[in-house]
Amino acid sequence: MINDSREIRRGTLGAVQVRFFTFDSLKLESGEKIGPVTIAYETYGLLNKDKTNAVLITHALSGDAHAAGVHEGKDDPGWWDALIGPGKAFDTEKYFVICSNVLGGCKGSTGPASTNPKNGKPYALDFPLIGINDIVNAQKRLVDQLGIEKLLSVVGGSMGGQQVLSWLSRYPQKLRSAIPIATTIRHSPQQIAFNEVGRQAIMADVHWKSGNYYDGPHPSQGLAVARMIGHITYMSDKSMAEKFGRDKKDAGEHFKFTADFEVEGYLRYRGDSFVKRFDANSYLYITKAMDNFDASGGRRFDDVLRGIKVKVMVISFKSDWLYPAYQSKEIVRACKLAGVETTYCEVDSSYGHDAFLLEVDEETYLIKHFLKKIFYAYEVTGDYGA
Amino acid sequence: MINDSREIRRGTLGAVQVRFFTFDSLKLESGEKIGPVTIAYETYGLLNKDKTNAVLITHALSGDAHAAGVHEGKDDPGWWDALIGPGKAFDTEKYFVICSNVLGGCKGSTGPASTNPKNGKPYALDFPLIGINDIVNAQKRLVDQLGIEKLLSVVGGSMGGQQVLSWLSRYPQKLRSAIPIATTIRHSPQQIAFNEVGRQAIMADVHWKSGNYYDGPHPSQGLAVARMIGHITYMSDKSMAEKFGRDKKDAGEHFKFTADFEVEGYLRYRGDSFVKRFDANSYLYITKAMDNFDASGGRRFDDVLRGIKVKVMVISFKSDWLYPAYQSKEIVRACKLAGVETTYCEVDSSYGHDAFLLEVDEETYLIKHFLKKIFYAYEVTGDYGA
Repeated sequence: MINDSREIRRGTLGAVQVRFFTFDSLKLESGEKIGPVTIAYETYGLLNKDKTNAVLITHALSGDAHAAGVHEGKDDPGWWDALIGPGKAFDTEKYFVICSNVLGGCKGSTGPASTNPKNGKPYALDFPLIGINDIVNAQKRLVDQLGIEKLLSVVGGSMGGQQVLSWLSRYPQKLRSAIPIATTIRHSPQQIAFNEVGRQAIMADVHWKSGNYYDGPHPSQGLAVARMIGHITYMSDKSMAEKFGRDKKDAGEHFKFTADFEVEGYLRYRGDSFVKRFDANSYLYITKAMDNFDASGGRRFDDVLRGIKVKVMVISFKSDWLYPAYQSKEIVRACKLAGVETTYCEVDSSYGHDAFLLEVDEETYLIKHFLKKIFYAYEVTGDYGA
Repeated sequence: MINDSREIRRGTLGAVQVRFFTFDSLKLESGEKIGPVTIAYETYGLLNKDKTNAVLITHALSGDAHAAGVHEGKDDPGWWDALIGPGKAFDTEKYFVICSNVLGGCKGSTGPASTNPKNGKPYALDFPLIGINDIVNAQKRLVDQLGIEKLLSVVGGSMGGQQVLSWLSRYPQKLRSAIPIATTIRHSPQQIAFNEVGRQAIMADVHWKSGNYYDGPHPSQGLAVARMIGHITYMSDKSMAEKFGRDKKDAGEHFKFTADFEVEGYLRYRGDSFVKRFDANSYLYITKAMDNFDASGGRRFDDVLRGIKVKVMVISFKSDWLYPAYQSKEIVRACKLAGVETTYCEVDSSYGHDAFLLEVDEETYLIKHFLKKIFYAYEVTGDYGA
């Protein structure tokens, strides 16, 4: 046993692999049916005998099932590797951590790029419109399949947080606790607007062809523009100023509208690298699911939550202007009004919305202690005793 | 004489017309020369005998010379009609108001869509890169041509404010006063980033063709996306929430990614209408001029301003997150350090950056009194006595 907690936090999971769970069909909230459905997922750590130590991680817009560790022969760790592993916030020596790619995604789960069984071609826009609740319903099938009656926690930031709220409002009996991070009950017009402009950029790309681009060039330039818009909204004015200032890039190939400033080069790079790993139609479907989502289902959110026995910790970040703290406070207010035991923390960060991926120390501290308390409570009460 | 000031403020100029001033050539800050140069401009009110009552209005990114009144046979008033006219903030019964379209623009002044005298074709990307200082140098030629030795004031918001700062730092001897509104000494990386994504959207449009689109379809979809991004940044989270909420549009033609929400429909409408009146290459050149501008010229801005005899009023708006108040305060601080007589007002508005066009009552109050004081001071001192 290593006693230096810093060392432990740096401990890594090593090689991990993605698995696939396929089921016949899923009825969507729209009434449509889709099937077969495959959900790509990864797990880290071991499920205990009583299956009381499972934590579900839900990913954001551009995330996937690969939340931690590395894939054989590759170097890139998962997107939340800083928080998942031996001794980390989600301590894989204690907990069994699950992360799955969302329905509608393009990283192994069924989405618009998957084969439509009706005609053997990619679904493209024949893929049905999905909602955050459908994404969660597919996750629930996976959790059920793993034989887990009750999750110790469901945790996610941004769109991941929307999924947490969907779980919380519709399947509270499946949860001990929930941690929505930098998220909202429903998108504001400004949040919808940024997504809409991204969608417009994709659909304006001549290669988009109403979604039927899979046998030719993809709408990469449109998708890159959408991603660039996203990146601006993920950072704060201050973090951009600190990272780039008004520094100019080294002179290279030059024409009138070259990326002169560092920030321009950064955005172009992030846009270009994104198109190699993401499907434009998935971007359309997933952002639409985010925009349409309303965790309150048109009621008062506190009415939806009344009487549930889930412990909630809400986390927001001071400089996050895309999912501003006031939206997290609305979640907290509804929880309190509903009598739900709720902790709130607004982390003093300058990273903007990206903070949920970057404020590792703060999140580790908050999540580690919160989970330990929840987990220990079962051990003592014996509900799911060891 | 009508005594109800509200009535007077609603007084309109009636029909106005655009004029053109052409001169042989302009040497640009880059060292390049361009010529001939035409500057489109409008004037309202009468220049007094001693030419002491001239106010220059400088326009923002998408503005033009048509700041007030209406053109014969058309209904649309100029972009700042609420502030310019008999009895208004810029009282045309007292002042002679000038507004010109910027160099590089597409509303009558020489720009990338103009004919290149070298080959008889539109300049397109053969148009030289221009800066805010070049735009101001062309304006100065117009002001000189009108025989005005000293402007009573130069006033503008956003990119118009950048021009005001260029005048202030380089031609203080030509000014009695200056009113920079919702502007900045230099763009932050966030401001550059939003412009850059707009440029990328234009250049990603298959019709852009490296700028050579004038004899075929224009890159309208790319330009519309750029404009939509702009509109989001011009409004505040709050003003969007108040204007649109999460209201859905009336059902009409429907496909999966129709604009369902009011805010989506609004953005698409604003994007589509913009492309009918604006040239995509102008958008590239002008936004690049904004991004490259630094009123301090690489020095300390207070050093640049030291010793000048211009009275300054700086105006910002609380909810403006594109040109946040801290940037206006940097202007004020530099002015104060330089010993320049400076007034600052942060208007409590929820309109975001658009406030400089919408907060008519506040701006009228501030500007009217400020200008009266400046104008009256000359009358009394007799410098330019009546």
